[in-house]
Amino acid sequence: MKTILLLGGFGFIGANILKFIDAMSGTPYKIIVFDKYKAHPCNLQFRCVEKVYDGNFSNVADIETIFKENPIDFVIHALNTTVPATSGNRYFDIESNLIATINLLDLMVKYEVRKIIYLSSGGAIYGHHHPVEKYDENSMTYPISSYGIIKLTVEKYIYQYSYLHNIQSTIYRLSNPYGKYHYNDRQGVINVAVRAALLSNSFAVWGDGNAEKDYIYIEDFCDILFKLVNNMSKFLLLNVGSGQVLSINTILETIKEQVPSFTWVYNETLVTDVLRFELDVTKLLTMLGGYEFTPFSAGLAKTISWLTDFQNIK
Amino acid sequence: MKTILLLGGFGFIGANILKFIDAMSGTPYKIIVFDKYKAHPCNLQFRCVEKVYDGNFSNVADIETIFKENPIDFVIHALNTTVPATSGNRYFDIESNLIATINLLDLMVKYEVRKIIYLSSGGAIYGHHHPVEKYDENSMTYPISSYGIIKLTVEKYIYQYSYLHNIQSTIYRLSNPYGKYHYNDRQGVINVAVRAALLSNSFAVWGDGNAEKDYIYIEDFCDILFKLVNNMSKFLLLNVGSGQVLSINTILETIKEQVPSFTWVYNETLVTDVLRFELDVTKLLTMLGGYEFTPFSAGLAKTISWLTDFQNIK
Repeated sequence: MKTILLLGGFGFIGANILKFIDAMSGTPYKIIVFDKYKAHPCNLQFRCVEKVYDGNFSNVADIETIFKENPIDFVIHALNTTVPATSGNRYFDIESNLIATINLLDLMVKYEVRKIIYLSSGGAIYGHHHPVEKYDENSMTYPISSYGIIKLTVEKYIYQYSYLHNIQSTIYRLSNPYGKYHYNDRQGVINVAVRAALLSNSFAVWGDGNAEKDYIYIEDFCDILFKLVNNMSKFLLLNVGSGQVLSINTILETIKEQVPSFTWVYNETLVTDVLRFELDVTKLLTMLGGYEFTPFSAGLAKTISWLTDFQNIK
Repeated sequence: MKTILLLGGFGFIGANILKFIDAMSGTPYKIIVFDKYKAHPCNLQFRCVEKVYDGNFSNVADIETIFKENPIDFVIHALNTTVPATSGNRYFDIESNLIATINLLDLMVKYEVRKIIYLSSGGAIYGHHHPVEKYDENSMTYPISSYGIIKLTVEKYIYQYSYLHNIQSTIYRLSNPYGKYHYNDRQGVINVAVRAALLSNSFAVWGDGNAEKDYIYIEDFCDILFKLVNNMSKFLLLNVGSGQVLSINTILETIKEQVPSFTWVYNETLVTDVLRFELDVTKLLTMLGGYEFTPFSAGLAKTISWLTDFQNIK
């Protein structure tokens, strides 16, 4: 049985990874969670979680305690202290994400933990300075948010540690995930819109709703993560998207099909958003030998069903 | 007459830029120098320098004083607190180069200074994770030193500021410059070897001397810089090299032709250095409409002549 240190275990992606492991047969993993919370903020329970360490990711001592007290087989780093919209404070972003991750890598070297999986961003990394039809792993990277720049810089340091210190690393440049266990109001348009629909709140669209992006059902990502987890190499960089490129309007109309009372309004905006953003996932599909992604309407139905059941809906 | 703020004015590249301006006809520029030194450490004098501010680049107040007291037309950022070999202290590198440059960019926005020229590194940025015959501006960037990663990250933030704050920026990814006014023992194999030759010291080569890189005579770079200085656009990224790819052995033998007493020894090394590193300078040559680079033997002769005259040879 392998022990995973999961950083950010009580975030959206973290909680989904934990639920996915809980549903595996034979409980092949036990998990140490590090998060700013002592327990999941909405009190979700996870059988696979052996210990929880709460603390500040920027505090090296908080992280070193975990490595001292537990033999770790590998690290899944799904912790972010910022989202694109809040990364205007570049100093905080550098301090709390970049420097904290370098500290983590140094601790991995010190305690001889030789594998890391890092959750990067397919949406924020590429920018549109060199626009192409589809962005593959070799496309130019000119992020327009500090969030994206710091994700990219963390990728570069992970490469450096894999090169200098014999660490195996996989970096997932994830498109826009949506699905169950999502509680964040600042990120994730599908989840925010579904919540508005179920609460009968009107939803405000920034722009004209024609912007198109790749969206992936979060369970598909968890499934892919564990399909490839034993397949690690010195340094692997992978786009992860479903290839389902949807406009905001298509998303809203599909929600309305399932929640007919849903309404929305368009806000005028001066933000020059990217009109279409498509990830090339050829490399991923080649590694997987093909993949059957959850269709958007099916993923949406599962998300709505979970949120309807969820007691603490805000 | 334009006013330039030159960061790192008393370093190798900075001093050459100042001497180059001194030699221009019509004194079109006056220069404010910022450096850690109050005067050039070897007491070089520069007519174009109007004021010198000495201070710590990491100290925002030190930099803000300059912008408060002087109207600046543009900034040339040639300041580094680390070299590849000393950038193992990643925290210092981030603090003193990355964060300090973000502070600078914020001050430029505040004081409405809208042009910056940044000296990046053609040698340290690309790495060899995606080896190609020649590295052009669109080649993959996987630096193996923190020095290179931070240079790359600074480039990304400069792009972000040019995108968000209407700053014009030119980034030069310079190959390996050599020439006059070089006093650094930690960087610059040609200059270090020439110094050893003139002092009749034996020179230690790391490896077998077959590694090949692009070297450029520093005056050529200064000339190119001012040829393109009025040609700035929103964001321009340029490799700058001479296309003269020389092995260490060729360099040493050429020095020996000019200083016959020169000897060297080979140190065994476990460092897996890159065997050949060539920059693609097609974009630069297209912008310049061609360029006649100083041949290596001629640049070397000028360097040896300067160093011979130089009183304070160490």
